Amino acid sequence: MKTFENLESEVRSYSRGWPTVFEKSKGYKLWDTDGKEYVDFFAGAGTLNYGHNNDAMQEKLIEYIKNDGVIHSLDMATIPRQDFLERFNEVILKPRNLDYKIMFPGPTGTNTVESALKIARKITGRETVISFTNAFHGMTIGSLSVTGNSFKRHGAGIPLHHAVSMPFDNYVEDHDSIAYLDRFLEDSGSGVALPAAIILETVQGEGGINAARMEWLKKVEELCRRWDILLIVDDVQAGNGRTGTFFSFEPAEIKPDVVCLSKSIGGIGLPMAITLIKSEYDQWGPGEHNGTFRGNNMAFIAATEALKNWENDEFAHAIQEKGAFLKSEINRLIDQYPELNGEAKGRGLMQGISIDKEGLAEDICAEAFHRGLIVETSGPDDEVVKFLPPLIIDQEGLEKGLKILEDSIKHVLKQ
Amino acid sequence: MKTFENLESEVRSYSRGWPTVFEKSKGYKLWDTDGKEYVDFFAGAGTLNYGHNNDAMQEKLIEYIKNDGVIHSLDMATIPRQDFLERFNEVILKPRNLDYKIMFPGPTGTNTVESALKIARKITGRETVISFTNAFHGMTIGSLSVTGNSFKRHGAGIPLHHAVSMPFDNYVEDHDSIAYLDRFLEDSGSGVALPAAIILETVQGEGGINAARMEWLKKVEELCRRWDILLIVDDVQAGNGRTGTFFSFEPAEIKPDVVCLSKSIGGIGLPMAITLIKSEYDQWGPGEHNGTFRGNNMAFIAATEALKNWENDEFAHAIQEKGAFLKSEINRLIDQYPELNGEAKGRGLMQGISIDKEGLAEDICAEAFHRGLIVETSGPDDEVVKFLPPLIIDQEGLEKGLKILEDSIKHVLKQ
Amino acid sequence: MKTFENLESEVRSYSRGWPTVFEKSKGYKLWDTDGKEYVDFFAGAGTLNYGHNNDAMQEKLIEYIKNDGVIHSLDMATIPRQDFLERFNEVILKPRNLDYKIMFPGPTGTNTVESALKIARKITGRETVISFTNAFHGMTIGSLSVTGNSFKRHGAGIPLHHAVSMPFDNYVEDHDSIAYLDRFLEDSGSGVALPAAIILETVQGEGGINAARMEWLKKVEELCRRWDILLIVDDVQAGNGRTGTFFSFEPAEIKPDVVCLSKSIGGIGLPMAITLIKSEYDQWGPGEHNGTFRGNNMAFIAATEALKNWENDEFAHAIQEKGAFLKSEINRLIDQYPELNGEAKGRGLMQGISIDKEGLAEDICAEAFHRGLIVETSGPDDEVVKFLPPLIIDQEGLEKGLKILEDSIKHVLKQ
Amino acid sequence: MKTFENLESEVRSYSRGWPTVFEKSKGYKLWDTDGKEYVDFFAGAGTLNYGHNNDAMQEKLIEYIKNDGVIHSLDMATIPRQDFLERFNEVILKPRNLDYKIMFPGPTGTNTVESALKIARKITGRETVISFTNAFHGMTIGSLSVTGNSFKRHGAGIPLHHAVSMPFDNYVEDHDSIAYLDRFLEDSGSGVALPAAIILETVQGEGGINAARMEWLKKVEELCRRWDILLIVDDVQAGNGRTGTFFSFEPAEIKPDVVCLSKSIGGIGLPMAITLIKSEYDQWGPGEHNGTFRGNNMAFIAATEALKNWENDEFAHAIQEKGAFLKSEINRLIDQYPELNGEAKGRGLMQGISIDKEGLAEDICAEAFHRGLIVETSGPDDEVVKFLPPLIIDQEGLEKGLKILEDSIKHVLKQ
Repeated sequence: MKTFENLESEVRSYSRGWPTVFEKSKGYKLWDTDGKEYVDFFAGAGTLNYGHNNDAMQEKLIEYIKNDGVIHSLDMATIPRQDFLERFNEVILKPRNLDYKIMFPGPTGTNTVESALKIARKITGRETVISFTNAFHGMTIGSLSVTGNSFKRHGAGIPLHHAVSMPFDNYVEDHDSIAYLDRFLEDSGSGVALPAAIILETVQGEGGINAARMEWLKKVEELCRRWDILLIVDDVQAGNGRTGTFFSFEPAEIKPDVVCLSKSIGGIGLPMAITLIKSEYDQWGPGEHNGTFRGNNMAFIAATEALKNWENDEFAHAIQEKGAFLKSEINRLIDQYPELNGEAKGRGLMQGISIDKEGLAEDICAEAFHRGLIVETSGPDDEVVKFLPPLIIDQEGLEKGLKILEDSIKHVLKQ
Repeated sequence: MKTFENLESEVRSYSRGWPTVFEKSKGYKLWDTDGKEYVDFFAGAGTLNYGHNNDAMQEKLIEYIKNDGVIHSLDMATIPRQDFLERFNEVILKPRNLDYKIMFPGPTGTNTVESALKIARKITGRETVISFTNAFHGMTIGSLSVTGNSFKRHGAGIPLHHAVSMPFDNYVEDHDSIAYLDRFLEDSGSGVALPAAIILETVQGEGGINAARMEWLKKVEELCRRWDILLIVDDVQAGNGRTGTFFSFEPAEIKPDVVCLSKSIGGIGLPMAITLIKSEYDQWGPGEHNGTFRGNNMAFIAATEALKNWENDEFAHAIQEKGAFLKSEINRLIDQYPELNGEAKGRGLMQGISIDKEGLAEDICAEAFHRGLIVETSGPDDEVVKFLPPLIIDQEGLEKGLKILEDSIKHVLKQ
Repeated sequence: MKTFENLESEVRSYSRGWPTVFEKSKGYKLWDTDGKEYVDFFAGAGTLNYGHNNDAMQEKLIEYIKNDGVIHSLDMATIPRQDFLERFNEVILKPRNLDYKIMFPGPTGTNTVESALKIARKITGRETVISFTNAFHGMTIGSLSVTGNSFKRHGAGIPLHHAVSMPFDNYVEDHDSIAYLDRFLEDSGSGVALPAAIILETVQGEGGINAARMEWLKKVEELCRRWDILLIVDDVQAGNGRTGTFFSFEPAEIKPDVVCLSKSIGGIGLPMAITLIKSEYDQWGPGEHNGTFRGNNMAFIAATEALKNWENDEFAHAIQEKGAFLKSEINRLIDQYPELNGEAKGRGLMQGISIDKEGLAEDICAEAFHRGLIVETSGPDDEVVKFLPPLIIDQEGLEKGLKILEDSIKHVLKQ
Repeated sequence: MKTFENLESEVRSYSRGWPTVFEKSKGYKLWDTDGKEYVDFFAGAGTLNYGHNNDAMQEKLIEYIKNDGVIHSLDMATIPRQDFLERFNEVILKPRNLDYKIMFPGPTGTNTVESALKIARKITGRETVISFTNAFHGMTIGSLSVTGNSFKRHGAGIPLHHAVSMPFDNYVEDHDSIAYLDRFLEDSGSGVALPAAIILETVQGEGGINAARMEWLKKVEELCRRWDILLIVDDVQAGNGRTGTFFSFEPAEIKPDVVCLSKSIGGIGLPMAITLIKSEYDQWGPGEHNGTFRGNNMAFIAATEALKNWENDEFAHAIQEKGAFLKSEINRLIDQYPELNGEAKGRGLMQGISIDKEGLAEDICAEAFHRGLIVETSGPDDEVVKFLPPLIIDQEGLEKGLKILEDSIKHVLKQ
């Protein structure tokens, strides 16, 4: 690890918590240079929903390279881009009756969010965007403005504007956050301007695996319709099947005006992002938002391959079943270890245990790493142990990971 | 092209100017699906300095995929990351006596710029950043704030703050822009606060291939030292050998406090960016700036391979020679076609012809495309024909491209 | 009225609602050029608490003018300034055990608020200020940022920043606004930065005569103490005895860090404002906030005379008694005219009836004007008939005014 | 002075430099409580152009008070307001062929500036305002944003936005500031958005008595017309005859779109301000900008009386002659005392000597105070001795003041 300590910036973080050099990976497993095996309950922070090094994707990539396929193309037309556009339309949009134009905003989550905010402001001619407590939308100034975390906000070094933070579902006990939002919108003396957009994650990944109720999501959409506000769903982490459906908002039966996708959209972990915009709102001028790496063709190839999982319902059902199993196990752990003061969070394969004792969640994750499980914390005080296994994990893998976790809990509680 | 028109957002731009589907590429050439060959004077907007599909890089990538190497790793430690850090230090930093820590800020140019602005603001506790007229630093709100182009700025949909635009070298005829900058800094009544940083491109790529004089760069550095301002060089487009040395600022003998690299740093066109920060200023907290795709291992592999070009001076000399040839050809064209009212711009293999007649530069580039040359315009009014061939282009390639260009000029002038 | 229509800007407002030329005034009465008499339930928007043209003040002013006293003096030392400082300290601060330094920030309400915001930001080094829904603090950009009204905010023509609007007491039915505020402050992921200050009116005059409960004020002060936030009370309209004590916050037994006074502080209606700052926070540099008209000596003279009312408790008791009478009358009207859907608002001699039917409150005030009563509406939808009689009004005056009001209600309801 | 030190805020400034208690004043003289006489070369910072305690104004005020005239009336119609509107139109606007609507924005300079910025932003729908180096427009956040002084800007405690500072006439030696401004406006890549307005003082009072050339003012107006930008002249200090004509911009033959007046507009030193807006731009909604003290009737009375000075050219001519005398005396002093490295500044009765030696100007003013002359410094480094005598001063007064000044110079230089 000397290389990293000596040459890399102090900003590095994961290599501190998991201080080993990783070498290989396949499916839900990783190995380090000592050959030690790790079960992966992290999935590259939600980027490896389809697991590590999927065989079919690997083959397609190798073939493309061997054929001197165009690797980098900005937004020039290429075959992988064409294939992706067509398959995404066929497999994802059409069956869900969604009339979105597909934008390639640059290959990162923060880029899709920045593009979403821009188009919402352009369409409405308004400036304010409403975001929610404990939201995480990215680290560039536009996205950071709608992010809740004070450490990350403070890192901007400048005040962050044009955003108003409203309470997420269940934020204040016994208070209806929709009632607040509604009151602020309808009262012309509230001090909050009519916003261009409301941006939300249906399950807040970094913010502590806070899952909004479907009913709450529906009500937010209703408010947006009543006040002519654009609804942006940031599905960067919760999308791509993470919660059991391709888009996380499908069970709420809402139709956001703009959807942000990144992370697992690239299939195998290659940088990629897309912004979905209702046709009527796709009023960009050419190049009004751009970026060099909008044409990562290798990512398009893996992305297109990944879409095969969505041609029928099997994959979705399997995720839902695994999610149910994980939920029951989490509840069991909470019951069995009351010292945790645990609370179950999340849905699908995006779940966690909130542990109401300072530092305990971090200790458990550190212990789990030593025992061969990659799992991280989330939440404003790192109080949630966050389970984000690859969606392709099998029962054996889940049990193996949960066993390590339980052992780690026991070990830490004993101390 | 129907697919792109029907399914992709209106924001697409290059596929409009070059309306064909590209399939293969090698060295300085591209082929579309009809098998038509194109000479590349664009290099993926400066991302393909080492040419398309370099054989050695292809082999390394295929080998890595075949071995199930970790593709995506955020800032976890991996072998490709380690190799890159060590080689970059050995080949680039040490020989130039540069004491920088290496930060991976997310794999795009705008990400490295956003991180540079953040650290400068953190270090100094100040908010304002001085940028220059016709600067281009990126499209997310932080980077866009220090970008000059009004169409792109307007796209933000919000006012852009914390930045002051000062005249670049030679901005106003017969006016010394340093005198102006100096006066604003020394006068406590100027209305311009002492800035955290001055950010600049030594050659403004998007802004019209405006090359600052070395003397001007030295003076800017002197001002920074006198007033304790950080100097950030955005070498995203001009770096990686584009102007004839690895960093574009080397001939000026300055040592920026922060350097932004992206585009060609990834070797073969894969998304990657790094931010170089003087050790003493590397005062980040862990994770204070982050991003999902900081660990694009395939890019690290190609990047490390690319560094081989810098182990001795041959590559640099070759670029300089090609640059001199290009300069002489540009001057010849300007002389031969006085109707262009042409002006030679830029240095190294980052040159252009500014054409003082509305729409003419665009017409020439459109005609060149039909004749098999990929070349684009730049500048606030798209008035510059911009030559950005891959650095590995040979004499034959340069001549071929210039021949097409000259034919295009003739053709367009005839009309 | 032709002169005003032809020569004065469209921005004029009161002369539209009360379209007559006023000539004389005394006590609680005004007369127009036709000799028509009006009972004043408006008191110059709270500026004439001591009534029109108080005899003693008139005498003092005339004497001062006759003696060639210095009229205008910025913050030079003059006798009227000295007298005011000493009497204000003796009569107001000392008996209430308040250790404030007195600042003259320019002679308007918005000026004292701007100075309060500045000193709070300087002391804490923070930028955000929390204000409340339906707050009104002034029309210059700093004060407007903490004002709720959307029409007035929109008039800025620029986005208003560095302020967060939180729910005032009883803002959302059955929701505890303190719980909400508390949650946003304690959660580091809330998206709301620790503020420099919380600014509030104990009774919101322009916002609809919303009176906070004493218990709520106490809790806000506790939050401020816990989080080391400065508490600013804007007592411009509610202070100077309006609610029955000199400062409106006295019954809550809180000690704000900064208090803003203007309007009636000048005694007879002459422009004046002061900012009271806890000694420990009086860390201004000389001239760090200034303004030309900080030395309006005529206002100081009337102000000093006005302080005589506070040398014992009689004046306060009288206000409280009149307030109680007014409250009972308001309740009677609400009972007697159920068509109003009336709700009693406010306390002391700052009360109102909120009327839940669009336009009705305005119609009543218009009718009252024709019948000889000056009374205006307030609230985000002009839904409150607002009673702000001079504090020196006698029982006869109150009854006379209320009689006209009741007649106006009857008349309007009949239509 | 104990009272002021013990009870008044540390923000006080003039009472530090002139530590005595002033009691009486008449014409161009003041007396303190010890009976010491002072010649006034300060005129209440330009507020007492008509001298202290003008007899006619005193009489009018006393008469009004005795008649129980309405003192305070917001923007209700009153006789003094009507008289002022009519006389201002007759005496000032009509003869100069100016078609302005008159707005009462609140009785301070910063209030008129804030209203000017608002209307310019409303009319154009743009946000940025261009101001100039060393401008001073006021201390509330809107006005402060267009003010140059860094100490005062820093006092805001927040970043100041929506303003771009451009070089005033003669700001950088041998550089044409119009060329800069022009280049930034015409270049769509300059990073400076098309502004709503350009705001300027024709002579910068606080900024160092910098007088723009008439030719420069004309060119600024031309730029405004070409780009459809509103031109705002802040004539708060330089207006009301200070430079020899009622408006300071008359000799330039320009017609600003908005003019800000305050200070001496109130005649005798009472708080008052007006904003003049070209009829076509008077598009305010009623009450869109307001303020409690818009109806200071005593000020209107003195203001109307003051207008008598402008019914013919005598007053203007007299000012011009006194200005010429002052200029010759300043030049004599500069010649006679080369140790000052003096430079003559300003025009009319708004002149100064810039002294190029740190602290010397302040020492001279301090000595002058002891010898009976009230004169202050201005400029970013307090380097200018600023002469601002009442316009009604006679030859004897001017000579008396200049004699004290010269003695003070001699005394200070001797040390």
